[in-house]
Amino acid sequence: MDDSSTQVGDGGLLLLRLKARTLNLDAELVPAQAAPRLIEECAAKGVRAIHFCTAGFAETGEEEGTRLESELVELARRSQIRVIGPNCMGIYCPQSRLSFSTVYPKESGPVGVISQSGGISMYLVRQAALRGVRFSKVISYGNACDLNECDFLEHLAADADTKIIAVYIEGTKDGKRFRRALEEATKEKTVILLKGGLTEGGARAVAGHTAALAGSEATWNSLCKQLGIIRVDSLDELIDVMVTLLFMPLPKGRNAVLIGGGGGASVLITDEFEKRGLRVPQLPQEIINQIREFTPAAGNILRNPVDYSQAMMDPESVNRTLDIISRWEGADFLVKFIITGQSSQVGGIKSDLSSLITGGTLAKDRQSSKPVAIVLQPSILPEETMGDFALLQECVSSRLPVYYSFASAANAINLVLSHSENRLS
Amino acid sequence: MDDSSTQVGDGGLLLLRLKARTLNLDAELVPAQAAPRLIEECAAKGVRAIHFCTAGFAETGEEEGTRLESELVELARRSQIRVIGPNCMGIYCPQSRLSFSTVYPKESGPVGVISQSGGISMYLVRQAALRGVRFSKVISYGNACDLNECDFLEHLAADADTKIIAVYIEGTKDGKRFRRALEEATKEKTVILLKGGLTEGGARAVAGHTAALAGSEATWNSLCKQLGIIRVDSLDELIDVMVTLLFMPLPKGRNAVLIGGGGGASVLITDEFEKRGLRVPQLPQEIINQIREFTPAAGNILRNPVDYSQAMMDPESVNRTLDIISRWEGADFLVKFIITGQSSQVGGIKSDLSSLITGGTLAKDRQSSKPVAIVLQPSILPEETMGDFALLQECVSSRLPVYYSFASAANAINLVLSHSENRLS
Repeated sequence: MDDSSTQVGDGGLLLLRLKARTLNLDAELVPAQAAPRLIEECAAKGVRAIHFCTAGFAETGEEEGTRLESELVELARRSQIRVIGPNCMGIYCPQSRLSFSTVYPKESGPVGVISQSGGISMYLVRQAALRGVRFSKVISYGNACDLNECDFLEHLAADADTKIIAVYIEGTKDGKRFRRALEEATKEKTVILLKGGLTEGGARAVAGHTAALAGSEATWNSLCKQLGIIRVDSLDELIDVMVTLLFMPLPKGRNAVLIGGGGGASVLITDEFEKRGLRVPQLPQEIINQIREFTPAAGNILRNPVDYSQAMMDPESVNRTLDIISRWEGADFLVKFIITGQSSQVGGIKSDLSSLITGGTLAKDRQSSKPVAIVLQPSILPEETMGDFALLQECVSSRLPVYYSFASAANAINLVLSHSENRLS
Repeated sequence: MDDSSTQVGDGGLLLLRLKARTLNLDAELVPAQAAPRLIEECAAKGVRAIHFCTAGFAETGEEEGTRLESELVELARRSQIRVIGPNCMGIYCPQSRLSFSTVYPKESGPVGVISQSGGISMYLVRQAALRGVRFSKVISYGNACDLNECDFLEHLAADADTKIIAVYIEGTKDGKRFRRALEEATKEKTVILLKGGLTEGGARAVAGHTAALAGSEATWNSLCKQLGIIRVDSLDELIDVMVTLLFMPLPKGRNAVLIGGGGGASVLITDEFEKRGLRVPQLPQEIINQIREFTPAAGNILRNPVDYSQAMMDPESVNRTLDIISRWEGADFLVKFIITGQSSQVGGIKSDLSSLITGGTLAKDRQSSKPVAIVLQPSILPEETMGDFALLQECVSSRLPVYYSFASAANAINLVLSHSENRLS
């Protein structure tokens, strides 16, 4: 047992990840069949908790797997050992230097996650980290044969390091306790919830899990509404909301000024914002006149959205324009955008717009009197992704919220605004 | 006038793009103020049609621009010259070697596009071309001061090289004629339509254009429904539908089998398909038994979605599995997927799954008895985009439909199936 890693999580949980070589088995990880024997050996060493990532238990829907899982639980109870899993990724807790991937950030942050699925927790951490999100604890709990969603949610609700709780859940075995835990969690924290398996086929894909608070969309909707939980429909939406909560100071209202390159898109991006209940108001003549004084291009650019691709302005003029717009009381927040794929040349639009996104303006955005969001629609062309990624990193290091499309920006900002409006009403 | 390029389009339209240096002006392109003088000089040379990409006319909403545009139209009429534009990108017609970008494909294809916006036509061609779409004629017509959406739509409806017509429109000046043109176009061709400016702010962003068949969502919806037009809500949706129409033989029904890597996502991707009216049916026991015979991994992978990330099978077993599923009468089409971002390691998932997507299996997919679609969710990490892009190109050269997300695949397949169902009913 010498080469196993043993750590005490700051929730007082003793965590242990066991490698099969500890037990002189051939495989690097413990196969399902060896799990019960492992529990016995751990009990002898005084271990208090085990995370099993191993699959092949009840989730197979087959007799052997289900029997093995019962045996596992039975043995663990008898030995007073708590189990996380099986069939999951376990714990990512940067503060305890515990991780299930070598590429995850080593720094902690205010977001706690509980996820019934391992793959989903992997995707979430990896994609959210690229956009600047940092985590307190991420718990992937799989089959939840012993410790379950209620235990973990209660833990995060009481955890001082966690300010935002994201939940991916397929079903719960104890609806009443889960509801109480959610109620507790929402008292002081913002909770975002993604429910998997709402359709008939989705519920079938959940198979192997018994869901007490089962499936209907209406049930989950009203639960979220009553408790003031931000309900999302996809993983990317979940990340967009995290990014908004973390990096966008709450706008005072729903009026956006959109500024960027790609004039043709002006109509469509306005539609994307307005159909989600945000507003893209006309700039008043006095604001247009102020900007016009030092703006060479045609009147076209001085609408909202403001189209900079036709202006090709110097950084100073860009800054002056942003200042004027920020001070306008009709604007509640600013959205700056770059659509690399809209250029007629490979890599074309980026250099035109560098003054809008890079350099000094980002630090300024952070201090701006109005919240600023960035839409950076990345290209799939390898020649352009390096540049896109560098821009992304620059925005992230300035702690600005970055979105990959107008639809996702508008959607997340609307969800966060609605959440705040509902809490106030 | 010697260095201007003059070409006859195959619609019998004489096209001319004039560089300012022809007229010994300082700028490389003709400024709005010089446009009228240019018309006079063209008339003297017997030119029959001019495309003006120049902006600064009626779209500015300012007096001077509006006056200039009227003068332009007046002069053109008097000289019997037809005008495309101003304020647009003009014509991309690969057959005539006419293009507004150096990066567009030189080969023709069956898709014709009319777009009120230049930027949108640029984005469309560039992004769609990466996914294998090829075009007959793409017409960006901007302010439509002379030739307008009705002329271009009538042209494409009669054009033997055009099988699919995509329309981006913000408003029309002659609703009755436009409706007649759409009716004619839908008789023998599939029409996809994106209407910009449906919201209040969006309509304001359209400003400068007079819309006779104005704005309401209901009007456009019922028009599309009556005429059997595929109505889309975004540019990416428009491209997804083009890709489906071109590369996915029409499935006989709505039953999908999803096969790929990223097991945790199984529940959510099933939801994405089923909430759009597609079905992800359970595999029957006899099919599972057939695959089980040569499949080493846990029962988990033999559901629908089929999770290959846990199987790590050899190419031969993958092919046998796909064969068995293709022959199952409960499956109407197959969706193979790769989510690069779900791996715990950079570039990790791709090599596991190479046997699913690359090499011989793609050619097989093309000949498969059931339509096959590919979901390739690209990474934003520069280390991974090269690999993603290579996979994309491999799929495209096998003439397979590729989508960047489950939501977009499900959405486009549903739209195309619904379109076909409505035509039959």
